Amino acid sequence: MPTTGPIDFYFDFSSPYGYLAATRINAIGAKYERRVKWRPILLGPAFKASGNSPLISQPLKGTYAERDFRRTARFMGVPFQQPDPFPIGTQNAARAFYWIDDRDPLQAHRFAMTCFATYFAQGIDISGAEKVAELAAHAGLDRDEILAAISDPVVKDRLKREVDASLLKGVFGSPYIIVDGEPFWGADRLDQVQAWLETGGF
Amino acid sequence: MPTTGPIDFYFDFSSPYGYLAATRINAIGAKYERRVKWRPILLGPAFKASGNSPLISQPLKGTYAERDFRRTARFMGVPFQQPDPFPIGTQNAARAFYWIDDRDPLQAHRFAMTCFATYFAQGIDISGAEKVAELAAHAGLDRDEILAAISDPVVKDRLKREVDASLLKGVFGSPYIIVDGEPFWGADRLDQVQAWLETGGF
Repeated sequence: MPTTGPIDFYFDFSSPYGYLAATRINAIGAKYERRVKWRPILLGPAFKASGNSPLISQPLKGTYAERDFRRTARFMGVPFQQPDPFPIGTQNAARAFYWIDDRDPLQAHRFAMTCFATYFAQGIDISGAEKVAELAAHAGLDRDEILAAISDPVVKDRLKREVDASLLKGVFGSPYIIVDGEPFWGADRLDQVQAWLETGGF
Repeated sequence: MPTTGPIDFYFDFSSPYGYLAATRINAIGAKYERRVKWRPILLGPAFKASGNSPLISQPLKGTYAERDFRRTARFMGVPFQQPDPFPIGTQNAARAFYWIDDRDPLQAHRFAMTCFATYFAQGIDISGAEKVAELAAHAGLDRDEILAAISDPVVKDRLKREVDASLLKGVFGSPYIIVDGEPFWGADRLDQVQAWLETGGF
């Protein structure tokens, strides 16, 4: 079993459990000297492929989910507030991410955490291109370059290809983490991800 | 907040994660000196109310779920094999359970664990009334009394009322655990159940 490839971390910027996992995944990777490849996707196409819908819109489950988001965040010691509107379209954030990531993965990670924290810790809508560019500027990037990237057909197509590739990998939710071919779905599988890295598979 | 009531443990005998939680829940209750009230339900009506369907029949998610059942069992150190047929109707096991539980909760617990282990550790179908009566006999009960109970309209109605009551409590999946009014869904929330009992809520 190869143990030198990156950990693939798939998430949607509008996913609370994606946010919770995002606060931990790089520390887990670092512990086992494994690079983490962040891969924002769009849950819309994933839900379409798997016949799912946003948790929050499901009877009974939706009410539970809102409570579980908050409680699991407290359990993990992560700042969280339920944003409104929720969920949101995250194609602008995801496009900006890939554009930045091609140039500087560390800066892309900083930008991603800023997006997550702004939406889920401060409750501020991050769907708009202007907002995404502002957050990228906070992460040290050029605002106008980001705005141009977001509306660039090449970058749009890049995100589309990433989403299509994730579907081929079987990614149907967020977070979805692949370690050496083994898939883990959910922030509540981080303990299994760690055990898998520790043991090389159990 | 009252801390003297029982822990309500809702599950379907055909639920792998219900089985996994079943192997742990009484030890957790004992640790915090809390009684655990086992409440078998039928996922069919719960899925209808919440717009869900069995995990296994969902595109992408079904394939993942089968892998996750096995892996999570290994992670927890619990014997498991994917039974076939799966899922199965569990009204006979649930009816027998309530009939036994009204007479002897300890024996009902033993019977429930026998059902779970037969289906998920040995992979043997437990849907039929004859099989359920045989398993009850193993747990020290009278085979013919169990067969009579399973087809008794009073016992059938008892299960129906338990299922209806669970829906009113918002139970939409298995396992579903309620501690002092706080609901926890999934075997992967047992750590939060423990923390809740430890702290009286967090």
